[in-house]
Amino acid sequence: MKAEIIAVGTELLLGHTINSDAAHVARMLAELGIDVFGSCVVGDNAERLERALREGLRQSDILVTTGGLGPTDDDLIKETVARVAGTPLEEDPESLARLREYFGSRPMGANQRKQALLPRGCTVFANAVGTAPGCAVETGDGKLIVMLPGPPSELLPMLRDGVKPFLARRARGAIQSHMVRTFALGEGDGALLLADLTPKANPSVATYASDTEMFVRVTAKGESPEEAAALAAPTLEEVRRRLGDRVYGVDAPDLQTVVVAELRRRGQTLATAESCTGGLLAARITDVPGASAVFQAGVVTYANEAKTRLLGVPPELLARVGAVSPEVARHMAEGVRRRHGVDWGVGITGIAGPGGGSPEKPVGLVYIALSGAEETWLRVMRPTGRVMPRAWTRSRAAGHALDMLRRALQGLPVTLD
Amino acid sequence: MKAEIIAVGTELLLGHTINSDAAHVARMLAELGIDVFGSCVVGDNAERLERALREGLRQSDILVTTGGLGPTDDDLIKETVARVAGTPLEEDPESLARLREYFGSRPMGANQRKQALLPRGCTVFANAVGTAPGCAVETGDGKLIVMLPGPPSELLPMLRDGVKPFLARRARGAIQSHMVRTFALGEGDGALLLADLTPKANPSVATYASDTEMFVRVTAKGESPEEAAALAAPTLEEVRRRLGDRVYGVDAPDLQTVVVAELRRRGQTLATAESCTGGLLAARITDVPGASAVFQAGVVTYANEAKTRLLGVPPELLARVGAVSPEVARHMAEGVRRRHGVDWGVGITGIAGPGGGSPEKPVGLVYIALSGAEETWLRVMRPTGRVMPRAWTRSRAAGHALDMLRRALQGLPVTLD
Repeated sequence: MKAEIIAVGTELLLGHTINSDAAHVARMLAELGIDVFGSCVVGDNAERLERALREGLRQSDILVTTGGLGPTDDDLIKETVARVAGTPLEEDPESLARLREYFGSRPMGANQRKQALLPRGCTVFANAVGTAPGCAVETGDGKLIVMLPGPPSELLPMLRDGVKPFLARRARGAIQSHMVRTFALGEGDGALLLADLTPKANPSVATYASDTEMFVRVTAKGESPEEAAALAAPTLEEVRRRLGDRVYGVDAPDLQTVVVAELRRRGQTLATAESCTGGLLAARITDVPGASAVFQAGVVTYANEAKTRLLGVPPELLARVGAVSPEVARHMAEGVRRRHGVDWGVGITGIAGPGGGSPEKPVGLVYIALSGAEETWLRVMRPTGRVMPRAWTRSRAAGHALDMLRRALQGLPVTLD
Repeated sequence: MKAEIIAVGTELLLGHTINSDAAHVARMLAELGIDVFGSCVVGDNAERLERALREGLRQSDILVTTGGLGPTDDDLIKETVARVAGTPLEEDPESLARLREYFGSRPMGANQRKQALLPRGCTVFANAVGTAPGCAVETGDGKLIVMLPGPPSELLPMLRDGVKPFLARRARGAIQSHMVRTFALGEGDGALLLADLTPKANPSVATYASDTEMFVRVTAKGESPEEAAALAAPTLEEVRRRLGDRVYGVDAPDLQTVVVAELRRRGQTLATAESCTGGLLAARITDVPGASAVFQAGVVTYANEAKTRLLGVPPELLARVGAVSPEVARHMAEGVRRRHGVDWGVGITGIAGPGGGSPEKPVGLVYIALSGAEETWLRVMRPTGRVMPRAWTRSRAAGHALDMLRRALQGLPVTLD
């Protein structure tokens, strides 16, 4: 099955909003083994949208649109899709009931009510977060147009709970797809290790890189889920073996989820002391539901006084070696661990830029320390030769801290060569 | 003039990378008054790329491609563009010289050298950050294809220093576009306030909503930048007037940038105490370059002991009213302000979910306190009737804290009705 994604909205076309919806939809489709053939953006223009839909239906089995369903949108997209699918719009009683429930005693305007207008005979996807439902409508020749809301907070739960199960039932055959996630492995190095596996078709092996991590997707197609799973298993095992202990998880959403689960399993606790990451590490850890069982406290010690008051870093040390130094990172990790009586303490200090660099301590230099019961470990991030954006340096530094903790918990060497 | 953006890369199509390049290019084109007619993504497939280029040239004057120019890319995009433009690829001596300079004494492979292969007669845009130059090539009928590198760190300086000045010399007319940003104003309410302005064409007024904010875009087209600006000004003023003090900025990137700038202007300082937001507020503030001038320290007091040790919240109070209470939020804000000797202290405590709720204190209940020299204010976020995702609650709570601070700094009422 082939699919195409059409994002609707002048704000996307003009670049006022970045089109992350297309990526979310594409990933969901890929997990189901549905090939994404193309992706485009059209403005709020019925004629261009209609042309995109009709062209899409010529080459693909499924079109997915995002955006244009909210109370302030005109009904351009719903009307155009209904016209292309050859089905009139009708008020869906169940969606109307949900809207009434959402508004409770507050008045519901005509703008709001029209969100219950959907193509006749469609499959409705309830909106768990906002007001506009999504839906899937079949065209006369058995193809499918799926309309979804634009805000990611509404789109993501709808993809997970409504659209993915619905499409999985329609997809023929079965797909088994696994994502192997690594930290501190370059995409080039990873690709070299897997070079003889990537040209194969089934199971397929593909490498991807985000800003700070490298992923490998292993996908097998079979007649049944069991056949697909049996086909995927040996290749998955081989990929894991080759990438070794840089692999932090298979099908795990992210490093913080792995770390929080491992800490919970052991009944251990954590506290963080951050300077240049400014709370990003604490925010990532506490983004995991249930993190309160392991995360005791975090401090963001931007000012030197705060490093002394909250962590006991000696002022003389700060004066002598500077805040961005291996010694201060160690003091931060050990200080926060001792003061909060936790099993693990993390300390991060560095220069995220764009200002604040010097020839001795350039932008991009970060020290990350992890303190446990028996040892304190240190990693250093050095500038790569070109100036990286502030957000990249912060994100990468928080990733290193999580990876150090993951490796310490798993009994692996914590520092990297 | 009309333009179209074609992003090339299977990783974009599969959703492994979010297509932010299209937004960057679109904004640059809009500033020049060049209408963006469409935007699409094609995978690494010469046939589909050629079709997209030929279709694009039928309806647009300028095509801009992003991606596919680096040393590890095959030459699919350059070869296809050269074929469509009817011009052969040749080694550009100046680009080759720049490559040699970039590599210095290090060896330069064939992969690297091929980056100097460009369509004959094109205008070259030097890459200030990476190795692959961009270029603009004219087709036989006077249309333009612009090829640009994919990594945003290379694309952005090239747009600013090379492409924009080049296109400005070719473009007629001008666009003036402003984004009015608000917090704590529903999209529906905002749209009602602007209902008579939104149907107009020039200037146009359009409303958008992100997860936790509402935006209004005012766009005017004119023959010259001056004419467009004069046309935009009265409508922009009217939008600001109607939306009132919910407007936190015009063309400001976000609330935290506005707050940090205002604190810097006054030479004031800030410290934060977070529970359910877990460091997200501190991370947002410190994401602003130069935040170190105003942000003194932050604490993430997840455990009750940490609230007592780091903020002086009395254990009896925690036992009596519970950690999620107006009293504890106030104590956190006042405690962090006093202990760090700063002008402003923020305290946030609540239940982000999915677990931890009760009938009296349901998931989604958050108290946000702001403490200044003369007063401590409090806002309450109550559940909306349906359970919101953890990330939404956390993000919204951090937004409220920033908005309270923004309003206090501007002398506006801080609590909301």
